[in-house]
Amino acid sequence: MALRAIGRVESPLRDKADAPRQGDEGAPDAWLVFEPGVAAGLRDLVPGTPMLVFTWLDRADRDVLVTHPRDDLSRPPTGVFSTRSPDRPNPIGLHLVDVLEIDGLRVRVRNLEALDGTPVVDLKPVLGPER
Amino acid sequence: MALRAIGRVESPLRDKADAPRQGDEGAPDAWLVFEPGVAAGLRDLVPGTPMLVFTWLDRADRDVLVTHPRDDLSRPPTGVFSTRSPDRPNPIGLHLVDVLEIDGLRVRVRNLEALDGTPVVDLKPVLGPER
Repeated sequence: MALRAIGRVESPLRDKADAPRQGDEGAPDAWLVFEPGVAAGLRDLVPGTPMLVFTWLDRADRDVLVTHPRDDLSRPPTGVFSTRSPDRPNPIGLHLVDVLEIDGLRVRVRNLEALDGTPVVDLKPVLGPER
Repeated sequence: MALRAIGRVESPLRDKADAPRQGDEGAPDAWLVFEPGVAAGLRDLVPGTPMLVFTWLDRADRDVLVTHPRDDLSRPPTGVFSTRSPDRPNPIGLHLVDVLEIDGLRVRVRNLEALDGTPVVDLKPVLGPER
């Protein structure tokens, strides 16, 4: 079960302290920069459509099973599978973005809260044919 | 970027020919059977809530970049990132399910179209705190 990076995130977000917790809390536009080897898979992307971007949150702590609220101490610790915390056994990031622009292997998106350099591992339509 | 199985799908769906293309096209109820090592992460699951299950579609073909419609030859081949085909470079399955019942490490869900034995790699709320 080895993931391969199919691309990388290019973003002004450089470290965790910069990152908003949800994409719609003010993430700047970012680029997905794909590997040449997957170009054929990109050919039907359409600007203006929502897509799901899957990333590998490579700066996450994979040993966390119970998370502690970052800034609200009145909230109790929570089992990690009931949160969207990046710190979890398999730190797969799931991001609902809007595709803004496609320029060859570069795809500009809105609402991606991933850090610069984060590996991209998949891209799927929100709903589409499974075949 | 090595995924670890945190559990397995237990389902009457045994092979690809049985599987509906979307969970809401008649997938039977299934169980997620988690590893003892991740038990603490499950403790806040609540029956009746929708959840996102991430699987590793271990019977997929990872070399596919362009898919051909399975049963509608009038549709053109499509770049795989514009489809939900399991055959793709990183065959991560994303399934929107309803949690029906929790019995220790076993979680019964509705609308999971994954095959019996499929590795489970993550479980997230549809929307929740990222912390």
